Amino acid sequence: EKLNQSSASFKLLNLYGKNLILAWPDQYVKNISDESIEVAIEVKKPYVLSSNEWKKEPTIVNIGDVNIGSNKIVVAAGPCAVESEEQVETVAKAVKRAGASLLRGGAYKPRTSPYSFQGLGEEGIRILRKVGDEVGMPIVTEIMDTRDSLIFKNYVDMIQIGARNAQNFSLLREVGKLGKPVLLKRGLGNTVEEWLQAAEYILFEGNGNVVLCERGIRTFERSTRFTLDIGGMVAAKLMTHLPICADPSHPAGKRELVHSLALAAVAAGADMLLIEVHPTPEKALSDAEQQLTPESFEILMNRIKSLAKALGRDA
Amino acid sequence: EKLNQSSASFKLLNLYGKNLILAWPDQYVKNISDESIEVAIEVKKPYVLSSNEWKKEPTIVNIGDVNIGSNKIVVAAGPCAVESEEQVETVAKAVKRAGASLLRGGAYKPRTSPYSFQGLGEEGIRILRKVGDEVGMPIVTEIMDTRDSLIFKNYVDMIQIGARNAQNFSLLREVGKLGKPVLLKRGLGNTVEEWLQAAEYILFEGNGNVVLCERGIRTFERSTRFTLDIGGMVAAKLMTHLPICADPSHPAGKRELVHSLALAAVAAGADMLLIEVHPTPEKALSDAEQQLTPESFEILMNRIKSLAKALGRDA
Amino acid sequence: EKLNQSSASFKLLNLYGKNLILAWPDQYVKNISDESIEVAIEVKKPYVLSSNEWKKEPTIVNIGDVNIGSNKIVVAAGPCAVESEEQVETVAKAVKRAGASLLRGGAYKPRTSPYSFQGLGEEGIRILRKVGDEVGMPIVTEIMDTRDSLIFKNYVDMIQIGARNAQNFSLLREVGKLGKPVLLKRGLGNTVEEWLQAAEYILFEGNGNVVLCERGIRTFERSTRFTLDIGGMVAAKLMTHLPICADPSHPAGKRELVHSLALAAVAAGADMLLIEVHPTPEKALSDAEQQLTPESFEILMNRIKSLAKALGRDA
Amino acid sequence: EKLNQSSASFKLLNLYGKNLILAWPDQYVKNISDESIEVAIEVKKPYVLSSNEWKKEPTIVNIGDVNIGSNKIVVAAGPCAVESEEQVETVAKAVKRAGASLLRGGAYKPRTSPYSFQGLGEEGIRILRKVGDEVGMPIVTEIMDTRDSLIFKNYVDMIQIGARNAQNFSLLREVGKLGKPVLLKRGLGNTVEEWLQAAEYILFEGNGNVVLCERGIRTFERSTRFTLDIGGMVAAKLMTHLPICADPSHPAGKRELVHSLALAAVAAGADMLLIEVHPTPEKALSDAEQQLTPESFEILMNRIKSLAKALGRDA
Repeated sequence: EKLNQSSASFKLLNLYGKNLILAWPDQYVKNISDESIEVAIEVKKPYVLSSNEWKKEPTIVNIGDVNIGSNKIVVAAGPCAVESEEQVETVAKAVKRAGASLLRGGAYKPRTSPYSFQGLGEEGIRILRKVGDEVGMPIVTEIMDTRDSLIFKNYVDMIQIGARNAQNFSLLREVGKLGKPVLLKRGLGNTVEEWLQAAEYILFEGNGNVVLCERGIRTFERSTRFTLDIGGMVAAKLMTHLPICADPSHPAGKRELVHSLALAAVAAGADMLLIEVHPTPEKALSDAEQQLTPESFEILMNRIKSLAKALGRDA
Repeated sequence: EKLNQSSASFKLLNLYGKNLILAWPDQYVKNISDESIEVAIEVKKPYVLSSNEWKKEPTIVNIGDVNIGSNKIVVAAGPCAVESEEQVETVAKAVKRAGASLLRGGAYKPRTSPYSFQGLGEEGIRILRKVGDEVGMPIVTEIMDTRDSLIFKNYVDMIQIGARNAQNFSLLREVGKLGKPVLLKRGLGNTVEEWLQAAEYILFEGNGNVVLCERGIRTFERSTRFTLDIGGMVAAKLMTHLPICADPSHPAGKRELVHSLALAAVAAGADMLLIEVHPTPEKALSDAEQQLTPESFEILMNRIKSLAKALGRDA
Repeated sequence: EKLNQSSASFKLLNLYGKNLILAWPDQYVKNISDESIEVAIEVKKPYVLSSNEWKKEPTIVNIGDVNIGSNKIVVAAGPCAVESEEQVETVAKAVKRAGASLLRGGAYKPRTSPYSFQGLGEEGIRILRKVGDEVGMPIVTEIMDTRDSLIFKNYVDMIQIGARNAQNFSLLREVGKLGKPVLLKRGLGNTVEEWLQAAEYILFEGNGNVVLCERGIRTFERSTRFTLDIGGMVAAKLMTHLPICADPSHPAGKRELVHSLALAAVAAGADMLLIEVHPTPEKALSDAEQQLTPESFEILMNRIKSLAKALGRDA
Repeated sequence: EKLNQSSASFKLLNLYGKNLILAWPDQYVKNISDESIEVAIEVKKPYVLSSNEWKKEPTIVNIGDVNIGSNKIVVAAGPCAVESEEQVETVAKAVKRAGASLLRGGAYKPRTSPYSFQGLGEEGIRILRKVGDEVGMPIVTEIMDTRDSLIFKNYVDMIQIGARNAQNFSLLREVGKLGKPVLLKRGLGNTVEEWLQAAEYILFEGNGNVVLCERGIRTFERSTRFTLDIGGMVAAKLMTHLPICADPSHPAGKRELVHSLALAAVAAGADMLLIEVHPTPEKALSDAEQQLTPESFEILMNRIKSLAKALGRDA
C-alpha cells in the first residue's frame, strides 16, 4: 500500500541505543546537521524499523537472564489459562525442571465465544507474578485492553499481543509506549508483511524489544486447527532483525502433533518456543485437547535439546 | 469449540424488549418460576442470542428514520477517511441527493502501516457530526479503542467495529454496553460462525442493535483485494435474525469492480451497503483506488434501485 | 512466472477467423512481410490469446442456436450425474419448459473417493445425446481422460473441463484440438491468472470457443462447500474477451443457497449459469444436497428473468 | 461426503501380499466363507486402504536397494526439468556423491503457461534412464497423460503424479494398474483427506507402492510460493501406513528457504525429501529461483545427516 503522500513527516526516536530520524514519504533527510542523529531512515516501504536493512545484526531481547535471539533456544511453557495458584505452581515447577526459561499463562483470555471461560483477569496476573517469583521464572501473559496497561507495566515481564489483536493498532501503540518486552503473535489472516508492520507500530513508539511469534494461519486445511507457516517464519527471519518464536500448540489443536511441530520450528531456525502445558490437560478450562502433560513436555524438551545440539545451538 | 464445562452460569438480560435468562453449559432452566422471565435459553452452541432459533422474526435496527433490515435497502456512503469539513460536506450532499441514508467516514483509521495517514481522530468525529446534522444524515464511523467510548456515545449514531478488531473482545463488550447501533464487520480471517460469536458478545451485554457487515475475506486470490464472500453472507442470513450489510469497496480494491460487487450483494439479499465515495478519489489520503466519484455513485444508486425493484424490494 | 528465455518460438494460428502469428519470448515480429498474417502478437505475459488486449470485442460462443456471451443469459441445467434415461428425460423437459437452453449431466464423474458413484461413462453420453436430440437441447458434459476424446468429438456439443482437471494440460490441449465449444471450470486452488492461462492452452491449439466457468474456490470458510468468487469472476471479465459462466450449485453445497448465488452471479455480469436439477434430489447418486427440484428451478428461472430485465439483459 | 448408497459393491484385491475383500457401502461381509480371503474391509469412510486402521505397520516402498519408509531418510534430487544429457549427468553424479539415493528430473512438464518450456518429453525420459543406469540411481519422473503409460512402465522406476494432477482420477487409476512405485503429490487446493482419497484410487487398483508427497498448499501468504503444510504432513502420518515425502523446493520458491524447509520436514518426521538441484540454477529453463547448486545441496545433505542422527534416524 502506498504511503501517505500528502505531507512530509519526521520522527525522532531512540532505538537500540541509537538516535534515529525517520522521514516519510521517502525523501532524503539531507539537511540534518545535528550531530546527535546517528541514523537517518527514509521510509520507502511500509516497515523499516523492523527490517534488517538498517540493522544488520540480530536483535537480542533480554528478560532478566533470559536472552531471546541468542544461540540458546528459549522455551516459554505453562497453562493456556491460569485456573488456580496450585495449578500454575505445579506446572511452573515441572517446566522449569525440564528446562523452560519463561512461565506462560493466560489471565485475560480472548475467547471466541462469550460462554467460554474468560480467564481470571487481574487475579490471574497476581497468581502468575507470585508463582513466577517463587520459582524464579519471568512471566509472559496476554494483554487485551489498552485500559489494562498499568497492571501489565507493573506486574508482567513480557507482554503478549494475541493473534486476535495482531492488528489492534491502539494496543500495539500502547505496548510500544510501555517499553517492556513484547511477544507479538501473527494474526491468523495476516501476511508476513502485515506482521512486520504490526511490529513496526511497537518500534515506532521507541520499543525495540519485540519477539515475533508464528502461531498458525487460517487455511482451508482442517486436519490441524491452524496451519503453522514454517515457510512464512523463515521468510520473516530473512527480512527482520527481530527474534522469532513459534507456538506449536495452537496450530496443532491435538496433543499428538505438538512435538513434531515444535521440532520442525526449531529445525527451521526458531529462537523461541511457546508451549502449553497443564497438569491435567483433560480437565483444562480451555484448549484441553492441545496442552501437554508435564511428562510429555519433559520428553519434548529432551528432544529439542538434542536437536538444538545437532544444529549447533543450545536449548 | 466446547463450552466451559466447569461450572454453571446464568445471565439475565433484556433484549428486544423481552426479559431473558441464559444458562450455560446447557442445562434446563427448569426451576424458574419468576413470571418476569419471558424467554429461557439454554446455551447449547457458542452463539444463541444472535441465532434465529429463538427469535424467528428478522431484527430491524433503527437509526432515526433509517430502518436497517426492512424492505428498503439502506445505503451508507461517504469517504474512506475524513480529511476536511469541505470534503465531507461535498460528499454528504452528493450521496444524499443520490439516495444514501447514512453518512460514513473514518476518523480513527486502522492502518496497516504506521506511516499511512492515521485519520483526524476526535476532530474527524466533530466534522462528521456537524455535516451529518447539517445535511440530515445519521453518521457511521469506526471505533478502535475502548478508551474512546465516551466520544462515540455522545457524537456517533452507528458505531463501526472494523475487520481488524472483529475479535477484539474488550471492544465488542464495550460497544455492547453503549447500547447504540453497531455495524460489525467480519474479520478477514474469520468464519461465519466466529462472526456470529463476535455479535454474540455485543448482544450478551444487552445491545441487540447489531448489523453484520461482510467485507471480504483473505484467500489466495489477488486479482481482487479481498474475496467478497457472498455465499458466507447468505449462509449467515440463514442462521441469524440480524440484518446483513455488504461492503463492496474494500474487497474490490479497484473502482471498476465496485458496481458489480454491490449489485451482486443486493441480488443475494443484503439489507444494507457501505460504499466509499470521495469528491476526488485520486487525491484521497487512503483507499484512493477503490473510492467512487459522486457521479459514479449516483449511477450505481440508480442501478441498485432498479435491481431492488426487480427483487420486490426498495432502495 | 518468467517465460522461457532460452530460445525464440513462433506459432501460426487461425483464431476467430483471423490469421495470427505469436512470438515468444516477446520480440518484435518485425520482419513479417507475409500478407496473409493479420495479427502479430508478442507474448509479453503468460496469456495473450485469452486477453482482451488484442481482441477488444467480446467473444460469442455459438452452440447451434444458443449464443453464449450475447445479451441473453444462457442457462444450462440438468442432473449432477446421469442415472437413467428416464431421469434425464424428466429433468430435460422440465428445465427446457422453464427456460434452460442447454442440457447438462455427468457421464464420467470425477469423484473424490473411489467408493462414490463413478458415473455411467459411455452409456451416460448415449443417454444424454438421445434425450438432448429428443427435447432439442444441445448437451454439456465433462471429459476426464484424453483417451475418450473421440466419443466427445462425436456425441457432445459442449465439452466441460472440470475443476479437478483445470490444470491437466494434456487434456486442455486435447480439447483445444477437437475445436468444439469448451466450458472450462476454474480449479479450486487456482488464481484468475492461472484460469486464463488454462484457457490459453485451448486457444493455443486454435480453438477459440471457450467459456470460463467460476465454480467456487477453496478457502477457510466452511458454511458453504466452496467460496463462489464473484469478485474473481468480475476481475476475469475485465481481463478477457471470453464469456463467463457461474456454477452456483457446487459452492452452495446446500439447496437453500443456490438461488441467492445464482442471482448474485447474474447481477455481477455472468453470461451463463450452470445449475444442477434432479427430479428427486434426495435420491440422487451424487450431490444430493445441492440439486434443485424442477419446481424450485422454475421459480429461480423466473427470478433470473426479472433480474436480467432490470439489468437490461434477457434470460 | 456420503458414499454411494444406491447399491452394494464388492472388490477383491491382493495388496501387500494379502487377499482382501472390500464392501461398500459399509455392511458386514459376513457370508464370506472363502478361506482365501485374509482381510475383509467394510468401507465406512471414503478411504480405507490407505488408512492405518487395517494395516498398523508402516509400509516400506522398495525401489531396488532404496527403501522408503525405513529408518533411513531417502533423498531424491535432480533438476526441475531435464534439459540435456550433460546437465543431468553433472547433477546426478554430484547429488549421488552427496548422498542422494534417487534421481529426479522432469521430462513431461506441467507448466501453467503454454509459452513456458514444456519439457523434452520421451527424449527426456531416455536421458534420465541412461544417466540413471550409468550412475546407478533409480529415476523418478512425472506422468501427465494416461496415453503415456507404456513408456513410464518400461523406463521409469518411480512415477510421480504432480500437484496439478492430484485429482486426475483417470491418471491415478492408470498408475494404479501399472503397479510401479508412485510418488503422489498433494494438490495445491486439496485437504489431507482428499490426498488420502487420491492414494486410495491407486491402492484400489492393487498398487500399494505409494509415497505421499507434501509440496505446499495455496494460502493467502505470498512471501513463499506455496505454504509447506508441515502440520498436514504430520496429521497424514497419523492417519496412514504409507510413507511421507516432503518437497521443500516448490513451496520455497526461493533458494534461501529450501534448507530450512527441508530440515523442518525431516524434524517433523518425513521419510523422504524431493529436492531440485541444477548445475547452474540461474540458467535453468524452469524454476530458476528455487533450484540449489550442487555445492549447496551437499551442505544441505550434511545438515540432514546430522539432524537425522539426532532424531535417531539415518540419511
